Amino acid sequence: MPQDIITKVKTAKSASIPLASVPGHVKNRALTAMASALDSNREGIIFANKRDLVAAQRLVETGRLSKALVKRLKVDDSKIDEMIAGINDVIKFEDPVGKTLSALELDTGLELYQVSCPIGLIGVIFESRPDVVPQIMALCLKSGNATIFKGGSEAAYSNRTIFDILVNAIESTEGMPHGAFALMETREEVNEMLKLDEYINLIIPRGSNEFVKYIQDNTRIPVLGHSDGICHVYVDSEADMNRAIDVCYDAKVQYPAVCNAMETLLVHKDIAEKFLPDVGKKYNEAGVELRCDNRSFSILKEMGFLKAVLHATEEDWRTEYNDLILSIRVVDSLDEGIDHINRYGSHHTDAIVTEDKSNASRFIDLVDSSSVMWNASTRFSDGYRYGKGAEVGISTNKIHARGPVGMEGLLIYKYVLLGGGNRVADYAGANARKFTHRKLNVNLADKMARD
Amino acid sequence: MPQDIITKVKTAKSASIPLASVPGHVKNRALTAMASALDSNREGIIFANKRDLVAAQRLVETGRLSKALVKRLKVDDSKIDEMIAGINDVIKFEDPVGKTLSALELDTGLELYQVSCPIGLIGVIFESRPDVVPQIMALCLKSGNATIFKGGSEAAYSNRTIFDILVNAIESTEGMPHGAFALMETREEVNEMLKLDEYINLIIPRGSNEFVKYIQDNTRIPVLGHSDGICHVYVDSEADMNRAIDVCYDAKVQYPAVCNAMETLLVHKDIAEKFLPDVGKKYNEAGVELRCDNRSFSILKEMGFLKAVLHATEEDWRTEYNDLILSIRVVDSLDEGIDHINRYGSHHTDAIVTEDKSNASRFIDLVDSSSVMWNASTRFSDGYRYGKGAEVGISTNKIHARGPVGMEGLLIYKYVLLGGGNRVADYAGANARKFTHRKLNVNLADKMARD
Repeated sequence: MPQDIITKVKTAKSASIPLASVPGHVKNRALTAMASALDSNREGIIFANKRDLVAAQRLVETGRLSKALVKRLKVDDSKIDEMIAGINDVIKFEDPVGKTLSALELDTGLELYQVSCPIGLIGVIFESRPDVVPQIMALCLKSGNATIFKGGSEAAYSNRTIFDILVNAIESTEGMPHGAFALMETREEVNEMLKLDEYINLIIPRGSNEFVKYIQDNTRIPVLGHSDGICHVYVDSEADMNRAIDVCYDAKVQYPAVCNAMETLLVHKDIAEKFLPDVGKKYNEAGVELRCDNRSFSILKEMGFLKAVLHATEEDWRTEYNDLILSIRVVDSLDEGIDHINRYGSHHTDAIVTEDKSNASRFIDLVDSSSVMWNASTRFSDGYRYGKGAEVGISTNKIHARGPVGMEGLLIYKYVLLGGGNRVADYAGANARKFTHRKLNVNLADKMARD
Repeated sequence: MPQDIITKVKTAKSASIPLASVPGHVKNRALTAMASALDSNREGIIFANKRDLVAAQRLVETGRLSKALVKRLKVDDSKIDEMIAGINDVIKFEDPVGKTLSALELDTGLELYQVSCPIGLIGVIFESRPDVVPQIMALCLKSGNATIFKGGSEAAYSNRTIFDILVNAIESTEGMPHGAFALMETREEVNEMLKLDEYINLIIPRGSNEFVKYIQDNTRIPVLGHSDGICHVYVDSEADMNRAIDVCYDAKVQYPAVCNAMETLLVHKDIAEKFLPDVGKKYNEAGVELRCDNRSFSILKEMGFLKAVLHATEEDWRTEYNDLILSIRVVDSLDEGIDHINRYGSHHTDAIVTEDKSNASRFIDLVDSSSVMWNASTRFSDGYRYGKGAEVGISTNKIHARGPVGMEGLLIYKYVLLGGGNRVADYAGANARKFTHRKLNVNLADKMARD
């Protein structure tokens, strides 16, 4: 393995130890320095970004890069304003490290504290979006985590420029350790990074499904995120027609390119003949292609103005279109809808539209997804809308952090036991002392400060 | 892959969906049935266990099984009493599923709830300890998780008998789904199980280091646990001598075969000449072999009565003896001690003995371990002692659950959004509505119950 990768990773891992206990006010000073460094280096950032854009434009012309990717690559003044605003938001967060989560007296003079702490060393791998660097660096710094970044090669100049500006700002701040943040630049480096499970505690990938899947398949390091976003709306027999149309239209049309957009519409048979023509008309106006099971096909094909009505195949139920395409299926019952979602979905976000509370309850209980909506669009499933301030990613994992993940996903805890020379031997055998296991209302920070 | 394994796993996965929303009182009825079934089938259990014990005895005679393992295999009336008591403890726990962890108004009539739920399907793989079956089955049932068990072949008859008794009790309870619990019996089945990351959400291995390591190395399913337990005690220059001796003796001698016993003693140079002869004398009486760095060797070798004083090698700092063997090193400073622990340790449990609060603080902040002790034996790191009632395992993972893990390690959450037909489109563009992001003091359960 190339020695410089190992060295960078080992250095970051070592720096993660002192970083974990940097006081909140020092971290905030570093964040302020980051924001102001971005502000005073706008020209340099935009200049570097132009180099990336020119090269990207050439790739678009030869069909090797999509226009959408180029759009996300662009950094202008308003993008820099957003980066700065994002950092300022993180400054306002309370310091999440060193919080006492629980405190328990085990016996007189033997006290157990569960205290929040950083995870350690995070690897962030993303495609061409230079604004990921300041956003994630701010979150990782505030949560005390060292971080290795790897951006897309299309954004190489932008990423390097932004990264250097930010790291320089951090490392010029008194009390901040050096080497906690590193940038990798080649695909080869990513593959090496994925092997370093001894040092890297968590990988956060941001990018296309294939990209995330590749990472999940090629590392033993835990991966926080999701590959697929196959989201459903189930329109129940007891649905309010207007609400159903609002939710179904928004979930598909408002922004179809994203993971929380609906891919499959499930409609209860009792309402299908009434609902499908109405919503089909709206979809038709928006240019949505409809891939239908037999029952929905026979309802929709009668409407002559709907050009794009096709037959769905089994493959459609498993497909994330990320586009103005929707698969539609009529189901016989609520439970058939739930079964379809648990079977074909990606456990990301699924919605029910109904006025019947017990049907909603059953859906909420039995749909095994990170977010479940009742009479609301799947598109709400997002860190900003969920009030997290900043989003690390959306996770379909079943452990650690699920759904839209904010800074809480970058934290874990340690147990701290304070005693007076206590021995386990005293709690065993014939005259064993008994544990009191009494809840305490004390913070470890106060305890260690007091005298 | 053998079809019956897939079928068992798929069946358990399907059953995990209804199991997730079984009400607390029904789960408690199933637990009561489990406890009473164990009580009324004592003879059958002990008879099955005798068959295992006879076979195991033969393996001991031919050196293929350790006596310690046979000891842990044995089930008698008092072991059954313990199993029953363990289940009764779990009955007393509050239902951990469906608890509202946070509630947030996103806008008027648009409310977000974060609600605890089971992880889904757990795989528990353990070596010969039949009492693991009732313990883990009780915890998994109470937390609403379906579970696949695989026990050691030495305990095959005991495990099968106990498993069948318990499952029969569960499935005879009205309202409990069938097929949520399954038992695998061959090594081949384990290897197949490790491939089923599509269905199994978490593996909990209980057994030797090599066993856990094998599982970690051979599955993409997240593994909750630890392979090594290389725990340290650092005796600071400011240590109280009696406390240091109590902690160091207890951490090594009280029960050396376990993961939270001390393997390496680090002593500050200023106290080494005073402390090492005293503690060395006690270790000598207990038959502890001491593997020393040069400085500790030269202090200890002068004491003629210490027979077992050897030179440590680099390998010793990385070794979990699980035996009456201890490596000893004299360090120049607190920071050298901390560095040694972070470098050679297994991030399990480490202790400092000192009367100096700022040294203790620094140790607590900088030692990257799941449990950090100040003036207490490492042996306290344990679910029972930490007041968890029952222990799923001790985790050295940096995500999800760390340290001694109780039922909380078997839970995750989902987000539930309640709206009135809300569209994201209304929160975008020129006249975008603003999110209120106001904390609510409402439980989802109440909200869904009310009318």
